[in-house]
Amino acid sequence: MIIVMEKSIDQEKIENVVGKLISRGFDVHRSTGSDHTILGVVGDVASLDTREFELLDGVQEVVRVSEPFKLTSHTFKRERTVVDLGVCKVGGRDVVVMAGPCTIENEKQLFGTARAVAKAGAKVLRGGAYKPRTSPYSFQGLGIEGLKMLRAAGKEFGMTTISEVMEISQIESALEYVDVLQIGARNMQNFNLLSAVGQVRKPVLLKRGMSATIQEWLLAAEYIMAGGNYEIILCERGIRTFETYTRNTLDISAIPVVQKLSHLPIIVDPSHATGRRDKVMPLTRASVAAGADGVLVEVHIEPEKALCDGPQSLYPEQFVELMDELRIIVPAVRRTLA
Amino acid sequence: MIIVMEKSIDQEKIENVVGKLISRGFDVHRSTGSDHTILGVVGDVASLDTREFELLDGVQEVVRVSEPFKLTSHTFKRERTVVDLGVCKVGGRDVVVMAGPCTIENEKQLFGTARAVAKAGAKVLRGGAYKPRTSPYSFQGLGIEGLKMLRAAGKEFGMTTISEVMEISQIESALEYVDVLQIGARNMQNFNLLSAVGQVRKPVLLKRGMSATIQEWLLAAEYIMAGGNYEIILCERGIRTFETYTRNTLDISAIPVVQKLSHLPIIVDPSHATGRRDKVMPLTRASVAAGADGVLVEVHIEPEKALCDGPQSLYPEQFVELMDELRIIVPAVRRTLA
Amino acid sequence: MIIVMEKSIDQEKIENVVGKLISRGFDVHRSTGSDHTILGVVGDVASLDTREFELLDGVQEVVRVSEPFKLTSHTFKRERTVVDLGVCKVGGRDVVVMAGPCTIENEKQLFGTARAVAKAGAKVLRGGAYKPRTSPYSFQGLGIEGLKMLRAAGKEFGMTTISEVMEISQIESALEYVDVLQIGARNMQNFNLLSAVGQVRKPVLLKRGMSATIQEWLLAAEYIMAGGNYEIILCERGIRTFETYTRNTLDISAIPVVQKLSHLPIIVDPSHATGRRDKVMPLTRASVAAGADGVLVEVHIEPEKALCDGPQSLYPEQFVELMDELRIIVPAVRRTLA
Amino acid sequence: MIIVMEKSIDQEKIENVVGKLISRGFDVHRSTGSDHTILGVVGDVASLDTREFELLDGVQEVVRVSEPFKLTSHTFKRERTVVDLGVCKVGGRDVVVMAGPCTIENEKQLFGTARAVAKAGAKVLRGGAYKPRTSPYSFQGLGIEGLKMLRAAGKEFGMTTISEVMEISQIESALEYVDVLQIGARNMQNFNLLSAVGQVRKPVLLKRGMSATIQEWLLAAEYIMAGGNYEIILCERGIRTFETYTRNTLDISAIPVVQKLSHLPIIVDPSHATGRRDKVMPLTRASVAAGADGVLVEVHIEPEKALCDGPQSLYPEQFVELMDELRIIVPAVRRTLA
Repeated sequence: MIIVMEKSIDQEKIENVVGKLISRGFDVHRSTGSDHTILGVVGDVASLDTREFELLDGVQEVVRVSEPFKLTSHTFKRERTVVDLGVCKVGGRDVVVMAGPCTIENEKQLFGTARAVAKAGAKVLRGGAYKPRTSPYSFQGLGIEGLKMLRAAGKEFGMTTISEVMEISQIESALEYVDVLQIGARNMQNFNLLSAVGQVRKPVLLKRGMSATIQEWLLAAEYIMAGGNYEIILCERGIRTFETYTRNTLDISAIPVVQKLSHLPIIVDPSHATGRRDKVMPLTRASVAAGADGVLVEVHIEPEKALCDGPQSLYPEQFVELMDELRIIVPAVRRTLA
Repeated sequence: MIIVMEKSIDQEKIENVVGKLISRGFDVHRSTGSDHTILGVVGDVASLDTREFELLDGVQEVVRVSEPFKLTSHTFKRERTVVDLGVCKVGGRDVVVMAGPCTIENEKQLFGTARAVAKAGAKVLRGGAYKPRTSPYSFQGLGIEGLKMLRAAGKEFGMTTISEVMEISQIESALEYVDVLQIGARNMQNFNLLSAVGQVRKPVLLKRGMSATIQEWLLAAEYIMAGGNYEIILCERGIRTFETYTRNTLDISAIPVVQKLSHLPIIVDPSHATGRRDKVMPLTRASVAAGADGVLVEVHIEPEKALCDGPQSLYPEQFVELMDELRIIVPAVRRTLA
Repeated sequence: MIIVMEKSIDQEKIENVVGKLISRGFDVHRSTGSDHTILGVVGDVASLDTREFELLDGVQEVVRVSEPFKLTSHTFKRERTVVDLGVCKVGGRDVVVMAGPCTIENEKQLFGTARAVAKAGAKVLRGGAYKPRTSPYSFQGLGIEGLKMLRAAGKEFGMTTISEVMEISQIESALEYVDVLQIGARNMQNFNLLSAVGQVRKPVLLKRGMSATIQEWLLAAEYIMAGGNYEIILCERGIRTFETYTRNTLDISAIPVVQKLSHLPIIVDPSHATGRRDKVMPLTRASVAAGADGVLVEVHIEPEKALCDGPQSLYPEQFVELMDELRIIVPAVRRTLA
Repeated sequence: MIIVMEKSIDQEKIENVVGKLISRGFDVHRSTGSDHTILGVVGDVASLDTREFELLDGVQEVVRVSEPFKLTSHTFKRERTVVDLGVCKVGGRDVVVMAGPCTIENEKQLFGTARAVAKAGAKVLRGGAYKPRTSPYSFQGLGIEGLKMLRAAGKEFGMTTISEVMEISQIESALEYVDVLQIGARNMQNFNLLSAVGQVRKPVLLKRGMSATIQEWLLAAEYIMAGGNYEIILCERGIRTFETYTRNTLDISAIPVVQKLSHLPIIVDPSHATGRRDKVMPLTRASVAAGADGVLVEVHIEPEKALCDGPQSLYPEQFVELMDELRIIVPAVRRTLA
């Protein structure tokens, strides 16, 4: 941590700041320039609140040198994390396509959709059983019955399965029926839930919160890793901005930024990012072209009858077309389609 | 719900949209103008996803007429809700000041702070026992031991107590020890938690999520009310914007907006909104001048030694000065200080 | 325009609103439902401020049916606008690459960069002569001398030239020396400047303002078209959000959104959107994969010596690599590289 | 400027960075810690682009120590600037109320409104003659005729006058007829216009851009001061956020933040910040309670007939009531009402 003192202040104020640092157990390295005195603070500053020193008399600015995340950072692990999902690997050479309905509604809908996306080349089947709905009056999901259907469909079509858990009490059944646990955007800072899935030994897909900075997102992953679960896939799904033509604004830059800061794989959910079917295809292509390790796309055999988010679900034939487009694009990023 | 069809489209497309509406059980009222045909849709459209119709061929725009919230709305209840906290009432003529440390650290700190704020005129004592921390390496709170201290301090100084619950499993002990349950900004869309406090018969203070629209905030309150708990106090605490000089941007306009839309009382937390002690006093005055039903201010007997958020905590003597300023302001909004 | 009246209000309030509308020369179509009365307003409502009616007693909501833009809209012109730049066309089958330095510094720098990008396949040469700088103490550009160099370089390498005008007084010289006039993000709502380039008969590239909605952006284009200049190319260059890891957040969704709303071509400037060289290549690929009609990329023969925005300029060899990647991607969007 | 090198990197990379700094004429102060090497850079770094060094191999972070603004900063001038407007002073003990119609429409409207606000206690009369309108089809203002009326009304009621200039060519006539030149939010980064009013010797009111950071706003003021015009009043008028219930989000925190960073006075325009009459009164009270040096409020004798922004204009009787409320509040901030 570096503390920049104000211009030409008296020695006493500097001593006061230095004294406080030393009393807290830090070593202080002082550097006096023509304009400013700068204090270099050495020790375990990770848990220190920088604002505490900013408010001291004579302090102009406090700068954290070390990033607040550890396990998720490249400094901790140089090689990229590859999460093995059995039928495919996320974070390696392959770009992985995950697809399926927003919500599991019934066997016919789930198996019909699964058959279509499996045939087109998707390796992972998604489907929600517990649904976080903005309104208490909306359909809330089938619960365990849905998870059972998801397991059956995954088995039938040779796909890995992924589904969201919203609450600690749901983890146990999810572990029994699904392969990857998803933490949704609204729960990205539900720290108790993050700690709980940190105890689990199954991969976790962690969606970015609607207004989470990339740093907060990596700190949420840190919560999971701190519990010992290192199998994390990050998922960008759009952030909230002033623009209202789309449901959210896909932060496509998050892909190269995360890849520079962390060793964890990153995929994109273009369906929630835009909220409209006709925007999903361009944004899926863009995500893969930008270097994403995979995509999570909502597909429904009959979107107009979907109980949830039908308007952002692709028709099966659109999904086939999309897969063909992705096959053209992947060589441009020196990747292959899983 | 109103559906505006595109200019000069053929009759067939209109019939298609009308057909779909009728098959879903809605009544349709058609109005043909020189430019546009407009369809008025009558029935229970609350659970309908408007995007579903926006994507139909020939549809230009879909507009929801009824607001998605019911119980929180003025339409449901014309008179303002007054939440009775025993020693004071929130939502009535009195402006209520809630104060205390961010986190309960030990008896000396809590009782010292409580004594100071009680003497200055605060009626409600705040203090966190379960702390949502962005980093897993930060202090996480004292848990039940903290709640016991809070109850003791409340009793000693004749104050109502408020503390945050982050997880369903914490509700039981909170009910035993505190008077008002707080739902924090990060949990505003933790729907399971909202439903759980909806079953409780104690007042709930619901903070606005960092990037929640006012509509989403009222829908979160709707989750609680739908469970039967009508004693809700809303709390604005700053939203996330592009500006970085302050931790968040206090949305002061939320006060008159919420008061127009809903019957629920609204207070302001200026401490989290700004994150700096020297901004807390101006924003507390501003909140009361704008018509807030109360404020929730962090105070600490020794802020520089606080384990959490010390830089945004007022010194006791600043709090005394602030109370004096508020006493000058309240007549301008035809209120009194509780 | 549609006016939704509040639930179960008395007839008098409705008559009052209807009266006001009629006195302003509108026709009113009344539709009475079980809950709400809805008024359809017919006439030239384009210049009407909807808030005026929202504030009337008994009015719940006012909805504009017709979009506020006319000439820029698909309704006005169904086929897509193709802007002919001589050596290439923007908005047709070809994806057009525009490249060059942020600022024209001297002949050696400009000609060196132009030679490199022309050889790699760029068709349009960019270079700033008038620079909008956030600080008054930064380099402000070479002015007319720069424009002369740009014309010479364009001629030498057979490229169309583009440069920014910041002020009405600069238009005359720009017309003499450059082929396409650029309006920068900070001037997107400089309405006098927009009107002035509307009088010109050269193509205009209109960048999106840092915090402009897509609707405001199209209305800015409308200002230019209203003057009679229909040769407009829109350019997305990132919007301001809460995320600070990148300079701006590229709104990649703007591409399909604009293509749905308007007939005007849209290109992307990934250099300003990210502000960092290592993010420019992924975002350029993403833009083309999302369907952009072109890209505007900053390239500099010696970025580390650039007087402005060096850190976001590509090295010539990176630009060559990028062009190769784009050639792989374009078939996925059924396009060719110009 | 401070450059933090990555952990445990080899000496060669450090030498490379140091070499570049020295070749640019800077002095470098090296400080080696257990983890990091830190370079202190001394010299005129104000015009340096920090990103240039961030991209060098081995560099972890670059931190600017000195703020980019000079003349607007407290470091340049310790005592607060007081702008003398003849009939009142802005930035001193008095809180100054400026009021009047959004747009000057005709003599009757202007004089009627001026009479009402003068009687209620406003000292400065506002009125637009050149109007920046989002749509080219909206009323664009009366121009010089409007300015003449404004001067006459100011004279009649003993008020200082203020009006917006949108374009360099309008400055001359504005100088002839009005006392204070206003630069609107959309022109906050119209650098040519800023430089031009920097040459003028009349006070300038500089509105904050819709999405400008406080730093960019002060740099815009720096453009004016760099020209020699030191009579600047800053005006907060709401920023763009994701919330849509209000037209903009008033950033009330900007008041104490600007007062800490700069010596320039700051006032608030609550009318544009909210866009609705019923929100203007609470936000005006809040602004004064937060410590603003003044407010700029839109008032219209017949708001429902206003050609522009009628819905955000107060009725004269509301303005009287507001002035009474402000008189109650000012002692709380140790001020008086001008």
